[in-house]
Amino acid sequence: MPNVQMLAQRIPKLRHSGMLTILVPKLLFIAATLLPSVVVASQGGDHADPVAPVAMALVLILLSAKLGGELAVRLGQPAVLGELVAGVVMGNLSLFGYSGLDHLWQSPSVDMLARLGVLVLLFEVGLESTVGQMLKVGWPSLLVATLGVITPFALGWGASAWLLPGQGIYVHAFVGATLCATSVGITARVFQDLGRLQTQEARIILGAAVIDDVMGLVVLAVVSGTIAAADQGVGFSYGNLVRIVAKAVVFLAASLVIGVYLSPRLFRLASRLQARGVLLALGLAWCFLLSWLSNFIGLAPIVGAFAAGLILEDVHYRGFVDRGEHTLEHLIQPISAFLAPVFFVLMGLRTDLRAFAAPGVVGLALLLTVAAVIGKQACSFGVWRPGVDRLTVGIGMIPRGEVGLIFANIGLGLSVAGQPVIDRNLFSALVMMVILTTLITPLALKLSLSRRRSASQRK
Amino acid sequence: MPNVQMLAQRIPKLRHSGMLTILVPKLLFIAATLLPSVVVASQGGDHADPVAPVAMALVLILLSAKLGGELAVRLGQPAVLGELVAGVVMGNLSLFGYSGLDHLWQSPSVDMLARLGVLVLLFEVGLESTVGQMLKVGWPSLLVATLGVITPFALGWGASAWLLPGQGIYVHAFVGATLCATSVGITARVFQDLGRLQTQEARIILGAAVIDDVMGLVVLAVVSGTIAAADQGVGFSYGNLVRIVAKAVVFLAASLVIGVYLSPRLFRLASRLQARGVLLALGLAWCFLLSWLSNFIGLAPIVGAFAAGLILEDVHYRGFVDRGEHTLEHLIQPISAFLAPVFFVLMGLRTDLRAFAAPGVVGLALLLTVAAVIGKQACSFGVWRPGVDRLTVGIGMIPRGEVGLIFANIGLGLSVAGQPVIDRNLFSALVMMVILTTLITPLALKLSLSRRRSASQRK
Repeated sequence: MPNVQMLAQRIPKLRHSGMLTILVPKLLFIAATLLPSVVVASQGGDHADPVAPVAMALVLILLSAKLGGELAVRLGQPAVLGELVAGVVMGNLSLFGYSGLDHLWQSPSVDMLARLGVLVLLFEVGLESTVGQMLKVGWPSLLVATLGVITPFALGWGASAWLLPGQGIYVHAFVGATLCATSVGITARVFQDLGRLQTQEARIILGAAVIDDVMGLVVLAVVSGTIAAADQGVGFSYGNLVRIVAKAVVFLAASLVIGVYLSPRLFRLASRLQARGVLLALGLAWCFLLSWLSNFIGLAPIVGAFAAGLILEDVHYRGFVDRGEHTLEHLIQPISAFLAPVFFVLMGLRTDLRAFAAPGVVGLALLLTVAAVIGKQACSFGVWRPGVDRLTVGIGMIPRGEVGLIFANIGLGLSVAGQPVIDRNLFSALVMMVILTTLITPLALKLSLSRRRSASQRK
Repeated sequence: MPNVQMLAQRIPKLRHSGMLTILVPKLLFIAATLLPSVVVASQGGDHADPVAPVAMALVLILLSAKLGGELAVRLGQPAVLGELVAGVVMGNLSLFGYSGLDHLWQSPSVDMLARLGVLVLLFEVGLESTVGQMLKVGWPSLLVATLGVITPFALGWGASAWLLPGQGIYVHAFVGATLCATSVGITARVFQDLGRLQTQEARIILGAAVIDDVMGLVVLAVVSGTIAAADQGVGFSYGNLVRIVAKAVVFLAASLVIGVYLSPRLFRLASRLQARGVLLALGLAWCFLLSWLSNFIGLAPIVGAFAAGLILEDVHYRGFVDRGEHTLEHLIQPISAFLAPVFFVLMGLRTDLRAFAAPGVVGLALLLTVAAVIGKQACSFGVWRPGVDRLTVGIGMIPRGEVGLIFANIGLGLSVAGQPVIDRNLFSALVMMVILTTLITPLALKLSLSRRRSASQRK
């Protein structure tokens, strides 16, 4: 136990940095003193209920997620970064000679909770935007989003091909796909903190992010579809590529059209039901149904979860809200607050820090980060309106966050001819890229916005 | 598919009963037309994400739970009964020659979600009562609760010993334990519907139910502890019995004392954290930690989950509510609304209707129901106050509901010398007992209350 205590003793020193109060280390210490009993539990338990190890895994995940999130928030970073780092720390305790927790993370149930967490999270993200909004943000956002998907994809492919010459084109394509998607939550938070959410830059970025999400999902669908076909011995062909693109586009378009027609009717019908909790149950069932359907036709389940949220609009379930039930966003929020951290902590847990000792992994992580940052600067060429700061738009698109992680995790599960597309080392490099792009953005954005403000004051 | 369609066609006829509008059969029909695609899915899916079958299981569970709940509510029954019956219907589709769904219910992940659902449900129930309330309801409730635990336990044991003479005392003891716990939610709902929640009868019943829950958990701890010891070759001994009772009582008392001391401090400390969702994460972690601890010392995890909720009181996290976060009850509610139906539908799914063809099972179910009903009438002898209707108190304590199901399910998982304590037939009889006691109560209670009202009007 000496290493854990050492860790707990070292952390209080952080408070002298002036950024942290006494309570984070205090809670960390409580957590650390709990660890020994967990080890005992892993040995004991003859008549143990199978829920017990899962319950303990959730205790550790929830507490570390909130402690990590708190540290991140106090350091001016998004909470999701803290959850990820908390997972990295817990997953690499074996570097300090402590591996008593490792069996907890191998539970298939914890993995399943994380997968459900991502579906609920993407559903929630989809609920926050509407089809109408997507059509309204117009050409600048579309152009920004398109450039912001194509360039990082190409640069990611190039970086992977340069540093991993032994790997096939599927690996390069998947790395490119992971670099596509913008996680605009972080940017939105910085704009909000600085009271600049109503600026043209913010509106273009937020609009582009929605389109970007959809494009990213199409790229993911195409790349993973091609890889799955290759794994079944079907070589790459343009016909196949077109078929997968068509499938993804038709699925999204069809679910939009059918959903826009069906969902208001379905929810209006259901609002006449008297049992409690109908809105939540129906919303979740809708999310899981489209996830299943999307997987069924060969796309990632998250595509369906996002589409399910995108289709649903407040007016569809006005009947429920009128009779005093909460909105769906409101009801989904605690569920995603419970399950989404399971995903992010688990992603951190799967990041093997020893991978960075392997030759080339640090270099790869850094090169991918550079590709991710430069790739999104192409977005600024999509901005034509006068008075809009191009640099701010480019910087705002940098963070990869949760979407990049979700993509990387899907890659871990794909294989061609028995070889995983994303191996442990590459996964660790991609997680590092996500962490670095997320770390860079708030600071760069604040600098860019204050530079602009002082420039306009000088005018 | 003919049987499923037949089912869907037959159900609309119910609407002529005048109790049902057109929409329940409409939704049932939509659900029935979805079934064929599920079968296809079970065959297809080469590159299927493991989340897909779980997502589909959740779609079917959530939709059938709400449809069943709606039917039950419209028939004047509690929603939980409808969820249970919906599970029984789905789990016995094979009687109609359709078994395409059966693989969905065997998923260990769905089972784990149900287990977590019970923990969250018991935590929520615990949150609704406080230690102060328990101490305040006084002697009548304590006496009512004690009589209402001892008599059904004895009668259940007797019924089991009479009809299952081949079984050991562990089976009889477990059947007795299953008959102990009152599920007072149904009674509370009837009192509420009739505007009689403020009567003395209602207050005595609700008070007794809280004490009853705790006593039931102690009985469960003792019985399952003895069974676990017996399975390890330790025969029954009074010393052992005393040890287990002591363990259960000490655990509950210690977690009350430590919890009452620790939890306000912990939550006050945590309320200074700035990250979002700290209250929910901490509340869930607290629930899971005590569940784990309770399992660790050899008790059922639900004992810990209930204790965790009982200890926590609103004032402990006032800091969060003051800064605009919702109360913990409010945040837990959507999570239990999502996961608890998974448990109840799964209980129904595990009820094999073919068991009732086996000789004696119907008789056993009926005898257990009679034992459950008569056993709780002993409660009326605990009522000494003048003007309080004893019959109403006795009837109000009848329903077994969720707690009986939770106990029966724990019995399914226990075994002595390789023999399960509760086998499939006995489980089905216990589920039938829960359904019957739940069906009887609302009607009997309404009759008893109206009889009393007309009697007092005549005075």
